[in-house]
Amino acid sequence: MNSLTSHCQFELPAWVGLLLQDWQEPLRTTSQRMELAVALSAENIRQQTGGPFGAIVVNEETSQLVSVGVNLVTTVGLSMAHAEIVALSLAQSSTGEWDLSCSGPMQLVTSCEPCAMCFGAVPWSGVKSLICGARKSDAEVAGFDEGDKPGDWVKLLQRRNIVVQCSVLRAEAAAILAQYGDSGGTIYNVGSGEAPDQQ
Amino acid sequence: MNSLTSHCQFELPAWVGLLLQDWQEPLRTTSQRMELAVALSAENIRQQTGGPFGAIVVNEETSQLVSVGVNLVTTVGLSMAHAEIVALSLAQSSTGEWDLSCSGPMQLVTSCEPCAMCFGAVPWSGVKSLICGARKSDAEVAGFDEGDKPGDWVKLLQRRNIVVQCSVLRAEAAAILAQYGDSGGTIYNVGSGEAPDQQ
Repeated sequence: MNSLTSHCQFELPAWVGLLLQDWQEPLRTTSQRMELAVALSAENIRQQTGGPFGAIVVNEETSQLVSVGVNLVTTVGLSMAHAEIVALSLAQSSTGEWDLSCSGPMQLVTSCEPCAMCFGAVPWSGVKSLICGARKSDAEVAGFDEGDKPGDWVKLLQRRNIVVQCSVLRAEAAAILAQYGDSGGTIYNVGSGEAPDQQ
Repeated sequence: MNSLTSHCQFELPAWVGLLLQDWQEPLRTTSQRMELAVALSAENIRQQTGGPFGAIVVNEETSQLVSVGVNLVTTVGLSMAHAEIVALSLAQSSTGEWDLSCSGPMQLVTSCEPCAMCFGAVPWSGVKSLICGARKSDAEVAGFDEGDKPGDWVKLLQRRNIVVQCSVLRAEAAAILAQYGDSGGTIYNVGSGEAPDQQ
């Protein structure tokens, strides 16, 4: 049989390191953490390295930043490279543990509530809590598709002992989505172009 | 701010290339394709490189194999490294397109129906059809957790113009899951160890 690709990788854009130089640890408050996630989403548009979504993983005990993520779908060529998957995977690469609970109480902070895929990914990652900025409706206004996530997704995560808080700095986070939509930011469609974009 | 990990990667185990030498293209029938996905799941146990799950991406037009995947969660240390995500991401790495519909009518064939995360990932990948072997209940019997996938997940994919066929070679696929459960295969739990494993 033919020789197939056996290796897959992705990397954060170089600008992420420069942006982080302006931020100080510890990130003690939920607002401070969300400010960074939103700043990543905004800079990802400005740098044209992907969609308007940012996420970080923070150790809740130490308030130290463990990883950051931005949406890299179009630039790394992987449909799974949503900000949340990027941040979780980089946290796991950093800690060496696919189960982040082995490395402390970890929190995923995302500039927009997760799509169906990222919702499903949260329990598998071992994070203890999830903080979201913009809501599904904010993403939809900008032309994005959240996928078929259960309506009671917050309760379903809570039932798995994952603490969830929504609408943290929602206005600031939603403004970045609206800006992307208004500016005619690339809406990358699957297939025919008839379906709305995924986040 | 501290220096963070910015790079993430995963690679198929070397045995995959050897296994593929025994398979001939084209893979014309759904059964032939599922046989390969199930063979991958079985060999992944035997080689102890991850959970009992295999998946492939096939070009429906040419019946050529585009990529293969196996569950690599514990060996690459990434909770997203389910067989489906691995196969889809390698197909995208191979074609250079995050939207697989750009490269032809692509089919994802998986030895077990997708968990909540992989269900959410399917529409974002651009595949036109999804073929599943074992059912959710077969995975649960072996100790695995499917996550909170909507009950009408098949209809939800069909509404997105993705063709879905379940229970192809179900008995063969389920037997590998049962074998894994019976043999005391590593059940990798998130957190306390009280929750069942994810696939």
